[in-house]
Amino acid sequence: MSPENTAQDLTAVLAASAASARAFARTRPDERARMIEAVADTLDSHAGELVPLAQTETHLPEPRLRGELKRTTFQLRLLAERLRQGLLTDIRIDHADPDWPMGARPDIRRTMVPLGPVLVFAASNFPFAFSVAGGDTASALTAGCPVVVKAHPGHPELSRRTAELVGAALSAAGAPDGVFALIEGVDEGVVALQDPRIRAAAFTGSHRGGRYLFDLACARDEPIPFYGELGSTNPVVVTPQAWRERAGEVASGLAASFTLGSGQFCTNPGVVLVPDAPALIRALPALISGPMLTPQLADGFLGSLAELTAVPGVEVAVRQDPAADEAPAPVVLRTTAAAAIANPQILELECFGPSTLLVEYAHDDEVYGVVAALRGHLTATVQAGSDNDELALALVPLLAEHAGRVLWNDWPTGVTVSDAQQHGGPYPASTAAATTSVGTAAVARFLRPVAYQNVPDAALPTDLRDGAPGPRLVNGEIIAGSPVNSPPQA
Amino acid sequence: MSPENTAQDLTAVLAASAASARAFARTRPDERARMIEAVADTLDSHAGELVPLAQTETHLPEPRLRGELKRTTFQLRLLAERLRQGLLTDIRIDHADPDWPMGARPDIRRTMVPLGPVLVFAASNFPFAFSVAGGDTASALTAGCPVVVKAHPGHPELSRRTAELVGAALSAAGAPDGVFALIEGVDEGVVALQDPRIRAAAFTGSHRGGRYLFDLACARDEPIPFYGELGSTNPVVVTPQAWRERAGEVASGLAASFTLGSGQFCTNPGVVLVPDAPALIRALPALISGPMLTPQLADGFLGSLAELTAVPGVEVAVRQDPAADEAPAPVVLRTTAAAAIANPQILELECFGPSTLLVEYAHDDEVYGVVAALRGHLTATVQAGSDNDELALALVPLLAEHAGRVLWNDWPTGVTVSDAQQHGGPYPASTAAATTSVGTAAVARFLRPVAYQNVPDAALPTDLRDGAPGPRLVNGEIIAGSPVNSPPQA
Repeated sequence: MSPENTAQDLTAVLAASAASARAFARTRPDERARMIEAVADTLDSHAGELVPLAQTETHLPEPRLRGELKRTTFQLRLLAERLRQGLLTDIRIDHADPDWPMGARPDIRRTMVPLGPVLVFAASNFPFAFSVAGGDTASALTAGCPVVVKAHPGHPELSRRTAELVGAALSAAGAPDGVFALIEGVDEGVVALQDPRIRAAAFTGSHRGGRYLFDLACARDEPIPFYGELGSTNPVVVTPQAWRERAGEVASGLAASFTLGSGQFCTNPGVVLVPDAPALIRALPALISGPMLTPQLADGFLGSLAELTAVPGVEVAVRQDPAADEAPAPVVLRTTAAAAIANPQILELECFGPSTLLVEYAHDDEVYGVVAALRGHLTATVQAGSDNDELALALVPLLAEHAGRVLWNDWPTGVTVSDAQQHGGPYPASTAAATTSVGTAAVARFLRPVAYQNVPDAALPTDLRDGAPGPRLVNGEIIAGSPVNSPPQA
Repeated sequence: MSPENTAQDLTAVLAASAASARAFARTRPDERARMIEAVADTLDSHAGELVPLAQTETHLPEPRLRGELKRTTFQLRLLAERLRQGLLTDIRIDHADPDWPMGARPDIRRTMVPLGPVLVFAASNFPFAFSVAGGDTASALTAGCPVVVKAHPGHPELSRRTAELVGAALSAAGAPDGVFALIEGVDEGVVALQDPRIRAAAFTGSHRGGRYLFDLACARDEPIPFYGELGSTNPVVVTPQAWRERAGEVASGLAASFTLGSGQFCTNPGVVLVPDAPALIRALPALISGPMLTPQLADGFLGSLAELTAVPGVEVAVRQDPAADEAPAPVVLRTTAAAAIANPQILELECFGPSTLLVEYAHDDEVYGVVAALRGHLTATVQAGSDNDELALALVPLLAEHAGRVLWNDWPTGVTVSDAQQHGGPYPASTAAATTSVGTAAVARFLRPVAYQNVPDAALPTDLRDGAPGPRLVNGEIIAGSPVNSPPQA
């Protein structure tokens, strides 16, 4: 395809996306839920084709890919269910009140409307769950926004085939033409991000790429929200009490977590504060990692390891023989709390691959010193003792200042999809710490509130009319509401 | 004060603000509610001093200022009440579920934490409600964030005195030192905005100033949310049916709304689509405006009028004699729908003062054409007929694409404070269309979610523990909850 054709194609894609926005925004929740379920159904029914394609392009093992596809279609169905239940819009109704203390209050009712076309930058490390039909696409469609996915070059064939299936399923379920499209190429993504028809963007990937795109989104004539999940090192603190009680379990849990998916998880535990690094190293089981997703990621992993070990006080403690010719050597690095406090950048340097950095501390003050030096992370974990572990108890609120999710005696890899999930965190973990890219709250990223003042029922959106079902806050009181029945929109 | 001293003072203010953040974040909701009510009480009890001070500095009439102060203290008390009720945090609890369809789910619970020190840029036009103790300050304090207010130079003495009273009330109610401070000076505001200790900023003012600050906030090493309310022209459509039925009411309502507060409202109806401009002009009552807040605003008003009338097809239809020596002449401008579609920038040019632009249309298509040319606005209004006014009904969802609040047979000035209020809108009305700067939802701007995974009760925030009161979403079901009783935090 010539560059001219590509530019023409991109223009056509964006025009079609924008043209579909109003019709899609006006679909009823139950109609949109059916469309999203149709996408889930078609992906499930093509698992036998998609999983092998993903295996070829990503080198990830089949069971993992099957599980990831299941997660992806579950996510679509959960969002569809919550959409039907009316749980995704924060409906508020204030009836007219002549005695409102600041002065007579008119009738005001507030619901949410979709932002318009959303540009999704797919990630490489989850070819289903954070790619073409992943969480960002699912939440934007649920919100009622058309989606343009910029494919990740790490799995082009899978991206194209997934996009074909998604597009066909949406179309067959009655979605307007143009509501879903795939584009390819770095330049195309950059051009699309700056196009006035794109109204929001979501990204999962590296800090460097994400920050570049965030800056472009902010510099537009009309800036748009850029929901970037830029990764983190997900610090873990193993308390002395936890270590005394559960050394073996902590060592094997850590090994399993940081090598999972060849360490290519944004929730990889990359920094671990331990009271006794040599003992932890001795207690580690054999470290096994599969091959990496792409040669670029393998190179990047070695590059960031080199950067980390160039810092005074950081040394390689374990470099396991690779499990296969193309697999990276799992690595355990080691330093001290004093060195980490002196060079806090080592606490933020994400090595995207099977490695972790042990930070040995001698007393609690060093733990507090390292925690105070942290920036923003997706997760932070305490491995605590069973009996009134005061250090662990004190750390939970401190770690919450630096993370979107705080774990206790658990490991950060494996992010469940649910209502309470929070996948985000203070910058640089995310460019929008008040939002999540996983879980049902992720839909809110693509909505904005509109209040209707003194508007009669006939002119109101259905969900704001008198007697409408679904949960709502009415005159300051929560009404759980009946399930949303989705009467036809006027 | 020498520049060196000022810089030192600013550094001290920011250091004290940051130092107070953790203690303030850990105050219980009922404790914080009491502190906020103490601020309201002290402002009310000093009305006799504050209102005359405001009159001297702003030239606004006394009844308006008394009403505005009442609104301001009502707002503080309403937020305190909602804080006590647990209505400001979106609590979600998912219990562990081994049968969760995507794979066993751990226990996950999600609440919100404050962002940290907030920089508030005070506005000139509401010396109480959008200034030192206004909506931004009230919402940030309610969220548990320390506040640094950058005073507006339009009312320096009132700002200083209000700040003294707020600071003393917070202190007497037990708030940590440093939780509230006032700074002055454009440079000080710019330096503070770029300081890493400031974690969010809120602004109400002009597009030029707001965009400049937004760009600085985004360009930081750690970007922060910048909640800028940049004003708009708040389009109104008078349908032919409305005009036939209620010409006199529409004309007098419009006149009252666009001259209210000398037109110095960000919700001033600045663009009005009318079927018969000459008739509307004839039906207008005498237009009366008081003096403007500052000579700068008076100059700016004349400047933007000049800019508007320089556009081909825009003419002055009415220029009323000023009511007093220092008052501006109220102005009604006039153009056609065709001219507005040809030069859509006239639909966005905010004349901050007592003026409005009538846009005459000949048929419905011209109305749709002008509406399609709109950008983002705080409000959009339909003046509709009483009997199945099809144009009006069709306009409501179209106007909702361009505004944060849609009104029906009402006028946009006068923004009530309630749960359902939405004061914001697509850019350029706001830099953060998903948020509001008025109403109880404004608090969410200064919070971010944190999920706690597998964390035992003893280490959880109080509001997430088993049996905690307050509303919540538990396993996908809304629980209205009992009123929050605020047991002591562990």
